[in-house]
Order: sequence, then C-alpha cells, then structure tokens
Amino acid sequence: MQLTRISILGVGLLGGSVGLAAKSLLTSCKVSGYSHRPSTLQTALDVGAIDDPHAHPADAVRNVDLVVLCTPVSVFEDMLRQIGPALSPGTIVTDVGSTKRSVVALAETLLPREVHFVGSHPMAGSEKRGVEFARPDLFQNSLCITTPTRRTDKHALAGVETFWQTLGMSLVRLSPGDHDRLLADVSHLPHALAAALITMQADQGLPLAGKGFLDSTRIAGGDGALWRDILLDNRDNIRASLGRLRHHLVILEKLLEDGHEQALAAWLDQAAARRRDLLNQKLREVNPD
Amino acid sequence: MQLTRISILGVGLLGGSVGLAAKSLLTSCKVSGYSHRPSTLQTALDVGAIDDPHAHPADAVRNVDLVVLCTPVSVFEDMLRQIGPALSPGTIVTDVGSTKRSVVALAETLLPREVHFVGSHPMAGSEKRGVEFARPDLFQNSLCITTPTRRTDKHALAGVETFWQTLGMSLVRLSPGDHDRLLADVSHLPHALAAALITMQADQGLPLAGKGFLDSTRIAGGDGALWRDILLDNRDNIRASLGRLRHHLVILEKLLEDGHEQALAAWLDQAAARRRDLLNQKLREVNPD
Repeated sequence: MQLTRISILGVGLLGGSVGLAAKSLLTSCKVSGYSHRPSTLQTALDVGAIDDPHAHPADAVRNVDLVVLCTPVSVFEDMLRQIGPALSPGTIVTDVGSTKRSVVALAETLLPREVHFVGSHPMAGSEKRGVEFARPDLFQNSLCITTPTRRTDKHALAGVETFWQTLGMSLVRLSPGDHDRLLADVSHLPHALAAALITMQADQGLPLAGKGFLDSTRIAGGDGALWRDILLDNRDNIRASLGRLRHHLVILEKLLEDGHEQALAAWLDQAAARRRDLLNQKLREVNPD
Repeated sequence: MQLTRISILGVGLLGGSVGLAAKSLLTSCKVSGYSHRPSTLQTALDVGAIDDPHAHPADAVRNVDLVVLCTPVSVFEDMLRQIGPALSPGTIVTDVGSTKRSVVALAETLLPREVHFVGSHPMAGSEKRGVEFARPDLFQNSLCITTPTRRTDKHALAGVETFWQTLGMSLVRLSPGDHDRLLADVSHLPHALAAALITMQADQGLPLAGKGFLDSTRIAGGDGALWRDILLDNRDNIRASLGRLRHHLVILEKLLEDGHEQALAAWLDQAAARRRDLLNQKLREVNPD
C-alpha cells in the first residue's frame, strides 16, 4: 500500500507526532489535519506536522488513503458521523484510542460498508499535551496493539500494521475485549491508583516525597479530561481490576498482621523479580542483541 | 564538630555512599567499616568507601566521633547491644533507617547515657543494592529527616544535622511518630502498592506494559528483605494508610459508577495539579536561583 495522502483528525501530541513521523518516514506523503481550534491548526502547520489545515473533519478526509482518528475517545462518535459521508470507497480508517471496544463498535456501525476500519492503540505518549510537544520519534520502539474483528478487511489490517511498523512500532493483535480487559490492569488502573495516591497525601507529608513517589505518580500528571474518557469508557473492566487489586492488598494486610516474615519477603521478592524480568524484556525489545 | 573518625556499620549501597561522601567532603576523616561478609568489606575497601575493615561491630566503633548505623532495620537491636559497651562517652550515634520509632526507642534504652543518639532518615537510595553501586553524590540535593526527642542532646543533633548538610542534604525535623505516620503514606504504601500492582497482572497483560507502568512500579524492584523489615516495623501506620487509600478508591468507584463526568475530571485534574506543584517544588529545591 502506497500512502500518498493521510488525514489526521485531532492534531495534539499524538496526532502531531503521527504527522511528523509520516512526513519524515513516508516519501512524498501529504498530511491533512483537522482541529476545532484554529490556533492548534496553525501550530501544527508551523511545526511541520501537517500540510493542509482543515476546520471541518469532512473536508480533511476527502481523497485520502488513510484517516487516523486522534481526538479524545469521547468525540469519536461525532467524528465518525461527520466523516462517513465524505470518505471515498476503500479508504482505511484507524484510531489511536486507549480503549477499543466502543470505537470498534461505533466504526462498524457508523462508517459506510466500503470504508475499512481497523482499531489501533499505539502505546506511546507523554504526560505533556499539545502539538508543540509532538515528536517524529514518539512511536519508535514502542508497542502498537491492533484490534481486528471478524468484520475487519485483511488488506486494511495489513496496511495499518505496516503503517505503524514504518513509524517504528512493534505489533500485537488482540480482540477489542481482550485489549480493554488487559489494559485496565496494566494501564488504566495504575493511572487511577497514582491519582488516588496523590489525593490521599496530607499537606505535611507531600514535601517529604522522594524520587520513588515522583516516579510512581508520574502518570497521574496527565490530562484529566482524556483520562476521564478512558476510565468511563472502560469502567466495567476497571471495576474488576480494582477488585483484583483489593484482593492482593488483603493478602498483604494479612501477611503484615500475622508478621509472616518469610512469606512477606517472598511476596515482595516475587514482585521485584517479575518487574526485573519485565524491564529486561523491554530493554531487549529496544536493543535486540 | 570536627569529625576525624567515623564508623559505618553495614557497608551496602547507603553505608558505602556515606563512606565515599565523608572521605571526599570531610578533610582528613578516616572511616571504619563493619560488615558480617568478608567479601563486602573487601569491596568497600577496594572502592575506597572505608579505610579500616572490621569483622565485629564493637571493634569498628572504638575511638570514633560518629557512628552511622546502616544495617537493615531488623538487626538494629543486635547492633546497638553489641556496640554499647565499646563506645566512648560523648560519641554520637545516628542511623539511616526508613522507620524511626523503633530505632529511637531501642537506642534510648540500649545505649549508655553518655552516648548521644540522633535518629536520621536520609531520603536517598536506589533500587540497586550493594557497595559496588555506592556513590559519593548519592545524598546531594535530597532530604534528610532527623527525629529528635526530648532526650536528644542538642549539640549531638546539631552535629548530625551538619554532617548530613555537608553531604549535600537539606533537613527536616519530625518526631519519630510523625515521621513513621507520614512516611507510611508517601513512601511505604507506594512501595507495597507497586508490588501489588505487579503481582496482580496476568502473564498475558505484562508484555503490554508501557513506560508508565514501568515508572509506576520502579520502586517495587528493590530488595524484598529490606522492605519486609520496613513494612513490618511500621505496620500499624501502613494499615491506616491502606484504609485511607481504600477510602479514595471507593470515591473513584462511585464517580465511575455514577458516570459523573465533571466530578471525575475534577478529581483527576486535582491530582495532576498537585503532582505538578510537587514536581516544581522539588525542582526548585535542586536549582534554587
């Protein structure tokens, strides 16, 4: 698939980085961009993330090969309704949302049959927001999850996966349901927990925070509205994740109460070993040999 | 107070770093070191963290101005019993333990009256362990909490505080009880939570972990036995911290259940703002201008 024209709906940190990466890695690829804010469109132009700015989503997607939906999850439905009639048959649409069941269901309902939707979750980002922080290498060495269903066109899936690979990502395929369930544990719950950890601190205690506290709460520095959308969209899974976390906290509390020195050290050592293995695996992914 | 001879009991990452820092920042200061492992003593000598190695704590503390207790919290009692009879009147003893009520009570009970104990908690460290990772700048720009009581000698307190300042630390004074209560929230609970967060992950989900998950669980990579001691020693406060965390998780669950978009975004935004303020304050502490 030769991509000569792509469209980015929502040119924030992620959308802007998709534009910068596509323009630097895909030869002679032109990028259309939509934002509801004129100042954002101007900045996206200024930093070179897009070539053609558009104030209306439908205008931004005419005659393109690939549309990348980069707005917050909460406006996906509105975007899909607006672009549906303007898309040419055969156009591929994907997204960068952090939850996948709802967007896949919406796209399969709202987009014309001749348009091919493939759900994507490129796991790259930053607690910063705005196109001024966009980087062409944001996706390098990170993971992208695609979430095909029985209705997904195989060629479109291959095209979207090649696109993310070109941007430097490795790929994993999951069903939308498995994606949302696993991400609740490994991403959404940790975010909620970091926010709760900050919220519960006494004013007197916070100045005593060390590097460990700062690291363990870094993800909670992100945009509230963005994370509200993710948490609400995936709330059934997050409730289940919270239940599992509580179960493990009860185990910990029992170990403390009973003063089980060996069992407590084993519980902590197992967690430490699991994290070390994970870190080594991630380092191998970035530097294979 | 001119320190010409200090003694370090337990030459691991922290003890070794105290030695390296003291030898580089205090002119003509000699450092005695104790470890129960001959190989550790040899490495401490090799990296220049100590001058005189000793296989017995009592031998290591004879004729020194300052003793710094750097062993795990669980062997503090044994150390204090062993060194008590060997200490000269006027010697100052401090420690680097992460909990303070127990060590202060033990020291005030077990050490001779003419010896002056001052509890310290230099908040510096690493998830690495061992004297081979010791660094002379480990304490630079970090916080040290001292925990004097009514029985603490004022000159000894000033001497210990000057010592940590010389190593590059800023100082906060708290009662041992306040220290343990506040640190349970801002340090011990986050550690336990990071361990629980790793433990609860499905094998299938862990490879999907991104940078956020790695950061938020970094502190759980530390030594299990060390953290077991801390968690057990401070378990009453940690139980209370867990209770407060649960309270905030119930608030979050209610916001999700009711679909309170504005209140949920406000909850997340408040946490993000509080973390930003904290980060800015920490950055100002490191770079005052």
